[in-house]
Amino acid sequence: MADPEAAEKLRAHLPASIACVAGPEASQELAASADYDLAVHGIVSASGVLPSRAVLERGRPLALANKESLVVAGAHLMELSRRHAAPILPVDSEHSAIFQCLRGESLDRVRCVYLTASGGPFRDLPLEEFDAITPEMALRHPNWEMGPRITIGSATLMNKALEVVETHHLYDLPAEKIRVLVHHQSIVHSMVEFVDGSVMAQMSPPDMRGPIHVALHWPERAPAALRGFDVDLFRQLTFREVDPHRFPALELGYRCVEEGSDAGCVLNAADEVAVAAFLDGRIGFQEIVPVNRTVLERRPGLDESIEALLDADQKARRLALDQVEAAAAHRKATASGA
Amino acid sequence: MADPEAAEKLRAHLPASIACVAGPEASQELAASADYDLAVHGIVSASGVLPSRAVLERGRPLALANKESLVVAGAHLMELSRRHAAPILPVDSEHSAIFQCLRGESLDRVRCVYLTASGGPFRDLPLEEFDAITPEMALRHPNWEMGPRITIGSATLMNKALEVVETHHLYDLPAEKIRVLVHHQSIVHSMVEFVDGSVMAQMSPPDMRGPIHVALHWPERAPAALRGFDVDLFRQLTFREVDPHRFPALELGYRCVEEGSDAGCVLNAADEVAVAAFLDGRIGFQEIVPVNRTVLERRPGLDESIEALLDADQKARRLALDQVEAAAAHRKATASGA
Repeated sequence: MADPEAAEKLRAHLPASIACVAGPEASQELAASADYDLAVHGIVSASGVLPSRAVLERGRPLALANKESLVVAGAHLMELSRRHAAPILPVDSEHSAIFQCLRGESLDRVRCVYLTASGGPFRDLPLEEFDAITPEMALRHPNWEMGPRITIGSATLMNKALEVVETHHLYDLPAEKIRVLVHHQSIVHSMVEFVDGSVMAQMSPPDMRGPIHVALHWPERAPAALRGFDVDLFRQLTFREVDPHRFPALELGYRCVEEGSDAGCVLNAADEVAVAAFLDGRIGFQEIVPVNRTVLERRPGLDESIEALLDADQKARRLALDQVEAAAAHRKATASGA
Repeated sequence: MADPEAAEKLRAHLPASIACVAGPEASQELAASADYDLAVHGIVSASGVLPSRAVLERGRPLALANKESLVVAGAHLMELSRRHAAPILPVDSEHSAIFQCLRGESLDRVRCVYLTASGGPFRDLPLEEFDAITPEMALRHPNWEMGPRITIGSATLMNKALEVVETHHLYDLPAEKIRVLVHHQSIVHSMVEFVDGSVMAQMSPPDMRGPIHVALHWPERAPAALRGFDVDLFRQLTFREVDPHRFPALELGYRCVEEGSDAGCVLNAADEVAVAAFLDGRIGFQEIVPVNRTVLERRPGLDESIEALLDADQKARRLALDQVEAAAAHRKATASGA
């Protein structure tokens, strides 16, 4: 449990054979000491980094739904994964797709990967209407039901920017080998193009149980009552390039890959703060990316240890809050002036 | 060379270090005695069966573009492939796609495969205009440049019917696990759906150099200057079910899988004769499938040996010719009566 008080109440109702741990260190302790074959890690936010480290240091496979782990501390965690021969199994439709496309293949034969993005609810909204986007509009995702932050990240494409950083770490690919396509239907979850021009794609109806199931049973494929090809859903699949004017967030992901160090950590922290401020009505949809960009540009640029990164995370949050305040104040002044 | 006289002329121009063999047994002799690591077999027609056998008996990988080998004698050749640990590497866009989708996977985890068919030039032609189809119209394939028989087979879907038989043999799949979809763009070359609902697809611009390259370099992927994803070509991919009224040929492929024995051999022979008669203007486009069906229904049903199958091939051709004569005579009578 995250909240020690809530854990106290729960313990009163649990049989003695079930231990209940709580507080910020509890999941790390569990990862380090509990008896398990594979860890499924679905904690949200940068606080997921330390449990990821604890699992990998135990040499256990890590089924990772916490995308902040790789965005914040990808270089560290991939190094631990190699050192302890503990695979990271992505629980995310895009990375699971790439993972499946790479079965039986060699990473050094990859020409590039294509991450697909639904484009979210505003993929076809006229650009001049972006100023009027409300949280309610942004929370209406056309294909997936997800938490609020990732849903807003699908609308800005910031989620895809973070996935570019994850792809870079997971598959050791440089920025120029990672491409993003808008694919409205969310059926092709991503693709890998090999050096011989052959493109392998993984498809399924949008359903997170798919990637979870694949990770749980890896390296086997186990039967599941999950739908596969469906001629109505798959009738028409479309792909187009990402328009950088509509989705300026994407470029920030590439910048993080190029710059390394604490860039991913800082971008993630800034976005968490900016999205919360947007959902609270304090800044506009169009201000999320500028806040993130400013924080990214002012980052200190250190990544000596995971602890230093988590410290950078905290600093980035404070800087993002300052930016949010400034944007909110400007917004208020403009509104009262109007 | 197929023609011994032409070979004689060629020999006069060749240096002594280059041997030139000719005649119906020459390719078998080559397969059995020449020094090679892998055989690429692109001979057209049922005469390709015996060279396939000779390669597999040598225990060499067989890169197979001759689809008649598996259609005519699939059970025999797959048994030889297993016994001599000589893999059959498909050189055909659909089977190469399935082959690539199965890399690192287990055949016993396949829920089904989806063969894609362009639907040929008549996929949208009103059914009442089918009687007026000429050879010129049928030879205009929208996506691929191929030989005349396979192009007509793409227009009738008889080619796909034969591929159903090949898929059955190559991947040991029963008829109900082999499905066919009309996919106009010829970009998704086929798909495999696994027991967990995940669908893997292989895509590339329509270019036969792709499957040839994959087979030549198997089990590696070697670099090639072949195009991969192209946002203009891949912009919109569509799938639909096959309309059995428009494409009655497909059902004959499934019948061959169900019936086994010499059914594939007979269907292939009948189609070769019927297509030749259509191209000569002796029967109509709409008469190709009925000729094939009649010959298939009257087949003797024996497959004790490859030799018996090749004999069945000859008999089926004679029976198909009789059917063609009858159809042509009927056509003439109808025309003069009209």
